[in-house]
Amino acid sequence: MDKELFFELFSQTRVYDLEQPRSSGAPLLPLLVPGFTYTLHRRHEEGTGDPRTAASGFIATTEHAGTHIDALCHVAEDLCLYGGEKVTFRIQTPTGFTRLGAETIAPLLSRGVPLDIAGYRGVDWITADQPISRQDLETVCLHQNVTLHEGDVALVRTGNGTRWHDPSGYLSSGGVRADASQWLADQHVRAVGADHISWDTDGRVDPDLGTSLPGHIILLVRHGIYIMENLFLEDLARDQIYEFLFVCLPLKIQGATGSPIRPVAIVPQQKSKNV
Amino acid sequence: MDKELFFELFSQTRVYDLEQPRSSGAPLLPLLVPGFTYTLHRRHEEGTGDPRTAASGFIATTEHAGTHIDALCHVAEDLCLYGGEKVTFRIQTPTGFTRLGAETIAPLLSRGVPLDIAGYRGVDWITADQPISRQDLETVCLHQNVTLHEGDVALVRTGNGTRWHDPSGYLSSGGVRADASQWLADQHVRAVGADHISWDTDGRVDPDLGTSLPGHIILLVRHGIYIMENLFLEDLARDQIYEFLFVCLPLKIQGATGSPIRPVAIVPQQKSKNV
Amino acid sequence: MDKELFFELFSQTRVYDLEQPRSSGAPLLPLLVPGFTYTLHRRHEEGTGDPRTAASGFIATTEHAGTHIDALCHVAEDLCLYGGEKVTFRIQTPTGFTRLGAETIAPLLSRGVPLDIAGYRGVDWITADQPISRQDLETVCLHQNVTLHEGDVALVRTGNGTRWHDPSGYLSSGGVRADASQWLADQHVRAVGADHISWDTDGRVDPDLGTSLPGHIILLVRHGIYIMENLFLEDLARDQIYEFLFVCLPLKIQGATGSPIRPVAIVPQQKSKNV
Amino acid sequence: MDKELFFELFSQTRVYDLEQPRSSGAPLLPLLVPGFTYTLHRRHEEGTGDPRTAASGFIATTEHAGTHIDALCHVAEDLCLYGGEKVTFRIQTPTGFTRLGAETIAPLLSRGVPLDIAGYRGVDWITADQPISRQDLETVCLHQNVTLHEGDVALVRTGNGTRWHDPSGYLSSGGVRADASQWLADQHVRAVGADHISWDTDGRVDPDLGTSLPGHIILLVRHGIYIMENLFLEDLARDQIYEFLFVCLPLKIQGATGSPIRPVAIVPQQKSKNV
Repeated sequence: MDKELFFELFSQTRVYDLEQPRSSGAPLLPLLVPGFTYTLHRRHEEGTGDPRTAASGFIATTEHAGTHIDALCHVAEDLCLYGGEKVTFRIQTPTGFTRLGAETIAPLLSRGVPLDIAGYRGVDWITADQPISRQDLETVCLHQNVTLHEGDVALVRTGNGTRWHDPSGYLSSGGVRADASQWLADQHVRAVGADHISWDTDGRVDPDLGTSLPGHIILLVRHGIYIMENLFLEDLARDQIYEFLFVCLPLKIQGATGSPIRPVAIVPQQKSKNV
Repeated sequence: MDKELFFELFSQTRVYDLEQPRSSGAPLLPLLVPGFTYTLHRRHEEGTGDPRTAASGFIATTEHAGTHIDALCHVAEDLCLYGGEKVTFRIQTPTGFTRLGAETIAPLLSRGVPLDIAGYRGVDWITADQPISRQDLETVCLHQNVTLHEGDVALVRTGNGTRWHDPSGYLSSGGVRADASQWLADQHVRAVGADHISWDTDGRVDPDLGTSLPGHIILLVRHGIYIMENLFLEDLARDQIYEFLFVCLPLKIQGATGSPIRPVAIVPQQKSKNV
Repeated sequence: MDKELFFELFSQTRVYDLEQPRSSGAPLLPLLVPGFTYTLHRRHEEGTGDPRTAASGFIATTEHAGTHIDALCHVAEDLCLYGGEKVTFRIQTPTGFTRLGAETIAPLLSRGVPLDIAGYRGVDWITADQPISRQDLETVCLHQNVTLHEGDVALVRTGNGTRWHDPSGYLSSGGVRADASQWLADQHVRAVGADHISWDTDGRVDPDLGTSLPGHIILLVRHGIYIMENLFLEDLARDQIYEFLFVCLPLKIQGATGSPIRPVAIVPQQKSKNV
Repeated sequence: MDKELFFELFSQTRVYDLEQPRSSGAPLLPLLVPGFTYTLHRRHEEGTGDPRTAASGFIATTEHAGTHIDALCHVAEDLCLYGGEKVTFRIQTPTGFTRLGAETIAPLLSRGVPLDIAGYRGVDWITADQPISRQDLETVCLHQNVTLHEGDVALVRTGNGTRWHDPSGYLSSGGVRADASQWLADQHVRAVGADHISWDTDGRVDPDLGTSLPGHIILLVRHGIYIMENLFLEDLARDQIYEFLFVCLPLKIQGATGSPIRPVAIVPQQKSKNV
C-alpha cells in the first residue's frame, strides 16, 4: 500500500465518539455500587516555591461502570468459561483471572454496523416489555441495506443513550432478547454493543436457558463474542451512518472481567473524492 | 472516498500495541503510591442454582499509573494552566478539574513518528546522566529520514520498555531534556510520548525554568501538547517502523488529570499491493 | 487502688454500644459520596489442598461515614485551625494533615452525660425547623438532674437513631443550634456527640458567624472540642441512663480529618453491691 | 455500686495505647497489598467566600492492615467456620460474610495479661527459628506470677513492636507455635494478641495440622478465640505491667473479616489510695 494514500485517506474521515461521559452518578446496576468515583488529592497550590505544580488523584471503579467491554471471563455457564475450561481457584483468584481477562482482548479494529432499532420502530427508546428480537435485527438490516459479515462489530441502538443523565429511566429500558443474541452469534460477529446498561433486558429470566441475561451466556460463554455496554450511539443515528470503521482499545488490565473503553466510529467522508 | 477501498486498506494493516501490561507492582513514581490495584469480589461459584454466574471487581488506580496520557490540567506554572487561566477552587475541586480535564482530550488519530534514540546511540537504554537532547532528536530524524509535521505525535524511545518488570531499573533511566521538549513544541506536534516513567528525567532541576520536570511545563502548560508515559515501543523499534497511524482513545474521565490508555500504531503492510 | 476491687467493679458494669452498624447504603452527606464500601476478594474456596483458607477484603470509606469523630484539622475558620495556625501546603498535604490529625486524638475515657432532648420534648425526633437550643440543653440538664463538668463528654439525643435505615428521613432531621454549641463549649466539655449526620442542622446559615454548620467552628476550631456524629443513643434513652463512663478509641490514622469509632457507655449496675 | 466510687476509681488509672500508628508504608503481608492508604481530596482553600472550610478524604484499607482484630469468619478449616457451618455462597458474599463478621465482635472489656517472652528470654525480638512455645508461655506466667483465667485476653510480646518502621525486619520475626496457641485455647481466653504481623510464624507449615498459620485454625476456627495482630506492647513491657483492664472496640463493619482497632490497657495507679 502506498503510505501517502493511507494517510491521505485518514485525513478525510470523521470520528464519532461512542463513550458516555465518565463520572460519578451515572446509571449503574445496583450490584455494582459504588460504580465510579474520581477524587483529586494532589493539588496545585501556593507557596511551595516551585513554579511547577502537579495535580493528580485516584480513580475507583468497577470495570463494568460507564461505557465498557466485558472480557470473556466475566460470565460462566455451569462454572465453565468460554472454551469449556472449568473455573477453579487457579483461574479465578483474588486479584483476577488467569484466563480470558481483559488483557487478552486484542485491539478491535473492524467494520462496524449500527442497527438502529429505536429509529426503525419510531420510538424514543425500547421499553422493557418490548425487547429487541431477532426479527427486529433482520428487518433493520434489510431496511438499512446492510449485511453482517464474520468479524464485524454490531451495535444495537435502543435510543437509551439520551437518558444517561436520568439513571432510573436508563436502567428501566428494554434490551436484546435471547433469540436476537443467538442470531448475532450465528453471523459470527466479533463483538456486539448497545446503548444499554446490560445488553439483555435486566430482570427477565429466559425460559430456554433458565437464566437471566441469557445473551451473556450465548455471546460471551458459548461463542466468545465480546459485549459492550453503555455506548453512545445518538450521533451515528442522527447522521444515519450505517457502516464505519470501529475502533476500540480496551485496557490490558490483567485478570479483570472487563475494561472501560472509549470506542470510536471512523467514517469516510461523504463528499467522496476520486482516488 | 470509496468505502470499499477504505475497508480494504484497513485489512492490509498491522497493529502494534503500545501499552504495557496493567497490573499491580508495575514501576511507579513514589508520589503515586499505591498506583494500580485490581481486586475481584464477585465470583463464579457453586450452588446458586443459576447456570449463569458473573464475576467482577474493582480497579483502584491513579490516572498516572501504567501507560497513560497527561491531561492539560495535570500541571500548572505559577498556578496557571494552559491558556493562562488561574487555578481557583472553581477550577480545581475535590472531584477533579472543571477545565482541561481528561474528558477534553479528543481521540488522537494522527501520523505517528517514533524517534529511536536508544537504537541510534546503540545502547540498551538511556541513562540518567545522558538524557535526550534536542541534538539527539534532530540527528535521529535525519538518520530515520523523517520530518515532523504539525499535528504529528512524536514517540521517543529510551529503550526502557524492556525493563517494565524491573521497577528500580525502569525508574532510574534517563528521559528527555528541556531543550528537546522545546524543540518538539516548536514542531507543533499534537502529543509526545516515551517509554519512560515521567518523560523528563526525574529529579533534575532545569536551570532555566528553575523547576524539575521542565518538559511538563513546556509541553502541557505553555503549548497544550499532551504527554504520554510508559509506552511500549520495542516492537516498533525491532521492526524499524518509522511512520504509522497513531490511535489513542483516552477515557473521558470528568475532571481527571489524565487517563490510562492503550495506544496503537497502525502500519500499512510492507508488501504493498497496487491500488 | 486495690487491683481486685478494680476488676471486681468492672465485672458489675453494663456496656452500651453507641455505634450504628457500618455498611454501604447508610445515611451520608452528598459531599461524602460514595461513603463506605466493603468488598471481599480473598475467599474460602475448594481445591487449594490446604485445610486452612483465609478470607479478606477491602474497606473504602471516608473518615466521616457512619459513627465517627471529627479530628480538629477537619474544619478551619478563615483558613486557620484550632490554635490559630494558618493552613499551608506543609500542614495540609495530599496524604493528610501534619497537624491535628486523627492520630492526635487521645483515647477518650471520660464521664459521659447524655442529654435526651427528643425525650424531654416528647417527640420521636427533632425536626429541622425546631433545632436544639441552649435553652433545651439547660432545661434537660435540670430535668435529668445532671451537671456538666470540665472534661465531660456530652451526648445530645435527637431521636434520629431509629432512622438509620431511612437515609432520607435521617438526613432531614434537626441538629444543634449555634447557641447550644457555644453553651457546651462554655462548660469546657472535652467532646460532644449526637445521633445526627452533622451535629449542626444541615443547610442553615448562622447569621452571627455567617456560615453553615456553625457548631463546627465553635467547637472544633475555637475550642478544640471533638464532635462525634451518627451515634446510637436509643438504648441509653430507653433505660434512662444519665451518667456513665464514656469510652471511645479513635484510630490513629495519620493525618486524617477524623476516624470511624465504636464508642461505648459503661454503666455501673443499678443493683448496687456494698463495697 | 457507688457511682462516685466508680468515677473516682477511673480518675486514678493510667492508659496505655496498644495501637501502632496507622499509615501507608507500614509492615504488611504481601497478600494484603496495597494495605492502607489515606488521601485527602476535600481541602481548606481560599476564595470560597465562606469563613468555614472542611477537609476530608478517603481511607482505603484491608481490614488486616496495621493493628487489627481477626473476625471469626477470617479463617476456615476444611471450608467450615467456627461452629462448624460450611461456607457457602449464602455465607460468603461479594460484600462480606453473613455469619461471624466483624459486627459480631462484642466490645472487649476484659482482664488483660501480657506475657513478655522477649523480655524473659532477654532478646530484642523473637527470631523465626526460635518461635514461642507452650513452654515459653508457662514459664513466663510463673515468672510474672500471673495465672490466665477464662475470659482473659492474653497478649504475647515478641519485642517486634520497636521495628514497626523497619518492615522487612518486622516481617521476618518469629511468632507463636501451634502448641502455644493450643495451650492458650485450653486456658479459655477470650482473645489473644501479639506485636507480630500474623501471630503464627509466617511460612512455617505445622506438621500436625498440615497447614501454615496453625494458630489461626486452633484459635479462630476451633475455639472461637479472636486474634489481634500488630499490637504495640513496648510501654507495658518497659513499665513491667502484668495485669490490666483491656479495652478494645472493633468497628461493626458488616461482614468484614476483621477490623482495625486501637486497643488500650487501663492500669490502676500503683501509688494506691485507701478506698
